[in-house]
Amino acid sequence: MADHGKAKRGIPPKADFNAWYPAIVEIAELVDKRYPIKGMDVWRPYGWKAMRCIDALTHEQMERTDHEEVRFPLLIPEDLLEKENRLVSLLKRAREEGVDPSELRHDEEDAGFKSEVYWVRHAGENDLDVPMFLRPTSETAMYTMFPLWVRSHADLPLKTYQIVNTFRYETKQTRSFIRVREIHFFEAHTAHIDEECASRQIAEDLEIVGRLMTQMSLPVIISKRPVWDTFPGAWYTIAIDVIMPNGRTLQVASCHHYRDQWAKAFDLTYQDEAGETQYCHQTTYGMSERLLGAVVSMHGDDNGLIFPPIIAPIQVVLMPVAAHKSEAVGPAVTAAADTLRSAGLRVKVDDRDLRPGQKYWDWEIKGVPLRLEIGPRDVDQGNAFAARRTGGKEPLPLDDIVAAVRAQLAQVQSELEARTRAHVADRVHSLENLEQEILDGHIYEVAFDGTDADAEVIEKQTGLTILGDAMTPFESPRPCIVTGQMTTRRQNLARMY
Amino acid sequence: MADHGKAKRGIPPKADFNAWYPAIVEIAELVDKRYPIKGMDVWRPYGWKAMRCIDALTHEQMERTDHEEVRFPLLIPEDLLEKENRLVSLLKRAREEGVDPSELRHDEEDAGFKSEVYWVRHAGENDLDVPMFLRPTSETAMYTMFPLWVRSHADLPLKTYQIVNTFRYETKQTRSFIRVREIHFFEAHTAHIDEECASRQIAEDLEIVGRLMTQMSLPVIISKRPVWDTFPGAWYTIAIDVIMPNGRTLQVASCHHYRDQWAKAFDLTYQDEAGETQYCHQTTYGMSERLLGAVVSMHGDDNGLIFPPIIAPIQVVLMPVAAHKSEAVGPAVTAAADTLRSAGLRVKVDDRDLRPGQKYWDWEIKGVPLRLEIGPRDVDQGNAFAARRTGGKEPLPLDDIVAAVRAQLAQVQSELEARTRAHVADRVHSLENLEQEILDGHIYEVAFDGTDADAEVIEKQTGLTILGDAMTPFESPRPCIVTGQMTTRRQNLARMY
Repeated sequence: MADHGKAKRGIPPKADFNAWYPAIVEIAELVDKRYPIKGMDVWRPYGWKAMRCIDALTHEQMERTDHEEVRFPLLIPEDLLEKENRLVSLLKRAREEGVDPSELRHDEEDAGFKSEVYWVRHAGENDLDVPMFLRPTSETAMYTMFPLWVRSHADLPLKTYQIVNTFRYETKQTRSFIRVREIHFFEAHTAHIDEECASRQIAEDLEIVGRLMTQMSLPVIISKRPVWDTFPGAWYTIAIDVIMPNGRTLQVASCHHYRDQWAKAFDLTYQDEAGETQYCHQTTYGMSERLLGAVVSMHGDDNGLIFPPIIAPIQVVLMPVAAHKSEAVGPAVTAAADTLRSAGLRVKVDDRDLRPGQKYWDWEIKGVPLRLEIGPRDVDQGNAFAARRTGGKEPLPLDDIVAAVRAQLAQVQSELEARTRAHVADRVHSLENLEQEILDGHIYEVAFDGTDADAEVIEKQTGLTILGDAMTPFESPRPCIVTGQMTTRRQNLARMY
Repeated sequence: MADHGKAKRGIPPKADFNAWYPAIVEIAELVDKRYPIKGMDVWRPYGWKAMRCIDALTHEQMERTDHEEVRFPLLIPEDLLEKENRLVSLLKRAREEGVDPSELRHDEEDAGFKSEVYWVRHAGENDLDVPMFLRPTSETAMYTMFPLWVRSHADLPLKTYQIVNTFRYETKQTRSFIRVREIHFFEAHTAHIDEECASRQIAEDLEIVGRLMTQMSLPVIISKRPVWDTFPGAWYTIAIDVIMPNGRTLQVASCHHYRDQWAKAFDLTYQDEAGETQYCHQTTYGMSERLLGAVVSMHGDDNGLIFPPIIAPIQVVLMPVAAHKSEAVGPAVTAAADTLRSAGLRVKVDDRDLRPGQKYWDWEIKGVPLRLEIGPRDVDQGNAFAARRTGGKEPLPLDDIVAAVRAQLAQVQSELEARTRAHVADRVHSLENLEQEILDGHIYEVAFDGTDADAEVIEKQTGLTILGDAMTPFESPRPCIVTGQMTTRRQNLARMY
């Protein structure tokens, strides 16, 4: 029966991930891809609710850490971009020539941003005097305003964030949540008195990321990207990569330490306590709807999605069973649902006139963590019969339903965590030498402390990409895989999305 | 001292509303207008929080009435607009020619939408094959997808909404929240089996509007717009106009009954119970950031904003007083703040090292409904000293602070409601005949049941605009102001924003 249901809904086996993923996001009604612009899906209610639950976790973290929410305009005038372009091309040159950026003069070279943005050059029947573009991210818009808000050291740190739609003219193959052209995007932007305070902000960002990844039970590798893979305007970039089911990595978040490079381009200064004018040091921290893509990918199975309880749009679905046989069933279901809702749980009652099996499949596909059935015998015994989406069934006492349901949800969460740990153990291997066979769908950890040229050799030989320095180095030194020199630098190699 | 503070901050007197309004939105840090695009302000944290509090009320109403939240792409391909253009121009012709729309054939005439939108015709270095525009509203985007979601009567009613950024290329003078080019916008779109069900939706919308307007204590007139002022694609339009302090009206919301006109243009059909194909009947309900503009305008005074407690970003500000004189003050403030926060109140502790007077002015300007001071003597007496933003001070018992604060906030709310009622009584007059003197800044209620030509006479003679038929007609018939025929039709005349 279950197989019949699955076949009817056309879910490919998850082992065929490239077929499973695009199918499940539509079958579970997260998005509708039939909107007539490539890479711009319609968020259906269930998908949007899931994203809003993830956003709620982000808001919570931002509030805890005293970030203030702002909302900047979507449109950015082209002339503001000149500062950014000059900055980025200067930093690129400095990196290529191996010199300190302060030794170079800004020039007018185009930084390539323009090839990735949507342009607004006409409004109504008019040509606009100054062309505008849709934000791909908001550095330019924000750093134009920050100098108006920061005067003295007392105005710092300035910690702002927004959750907005951003746009990239993506020419690669699009994929729901993972590679889209209108992106649901989170961006925090901060300004500080000096490099050290900005570094502490990066540490706070990583602590936040750690909490979020644990809440969603996502297996991540956190790496300081190699210089050639650092965001052009940044001093350094720390990226958070999820280990996807197929062993490829998906960057879901990143933090950039800008030092005072952007501040110099945008003239963002403050008066210090001695009355001297100083440049601010800045950071950014970005995440996107890829988080949802990672959750779908990581936890789903052959039967559909599995949502970690904390972000499940519906945490508990209640079903009356054989309600026609007992008048007590309906009221018992309603009472239990009300009690759970009052406790702040997200609850749905499914009293549709359908066969129970069909209802099961629906909620299985949608990844609801816990199903509760209440039939005549359950009412008599004072129980609800619980089935966890991750497996396992048992009766729960109706007179202590909130605590019992919370315990069940905690069990679902720890099962997901166990699966995540097993996935990491399964996928991350150690690479001892360059002759070792590279298995498809795996990530390799190496001791590596060589030059850029050495890195190129590794990437060529393995066919993988260097993610960068892991946040936790090896405890004791090991021989570098290329030079043989002892090092604690732990780096990861992977095939990236 | 207070006057010194006001002068320093440069708040014009509210009596000079046209100077007060643009000043206060920046002085209270709701928005920053220095972003280099006209009509696109930056939302500062305080303003954005206020808007999010208003949105929370909207979400609550949508949830209560089983609307589902969706999120459609911002960009709309130009070719989708053709259906809408054909529809709108057909309806316009039908109206001009006084015939039923179904008697006319759709033609290709441009409906004028194009003159109000921002165009995206380039991405990166490419010309786009199909030009796109930024949504001014989402009928076209949504009704392209609805036919894919609605198959049978069981899929109806379809009740969706979204809160998004929309865009209008506004050529008139812009004004924060009131006339902007990027609009924070709410739009509900529904589809029903027939005209009657759609009419019930309009009734539900009006009930929701009623609740929201009461919560924000906004004085409104709800009118069925005259035919010539109906949204082009609608059968009829009901508009919600706020009576602003200067007596002009500001449309903050509107509901449209579309009958099956859009469904015919977009081929939105369903199978009824008999298996016959039928067209859906549709409605929309829209609101915008104008709600915040109305709140600012209506409740503010010479000293700054006054927020109705339910949407105040900060509901209670707590201030330690003479904390250096007693070690008990700090902990008492913290304890009270924690207690209030746990009860779900939005609380801020202001322990800045500034003179109390300066702090007062800050929170007065920002319109925080309640200020609590706690000094050494208050701690001894087990009290906090409360000052309401609407006037009045008294001690509150710390051991019952939650209930006491709630009572204070309720008092602020009823004071605002009293002011709103007084404002309506002050501004809305009766117009008995067309020779009566029209006073500036007033709204006139008339009995009117004449023709369009008669309406034109009224508008010309009074210099005012007809808002349309009030939802509550006169209880007993009166003579029409033009024809003298007896009628219960109550219409309002006003100068509109």
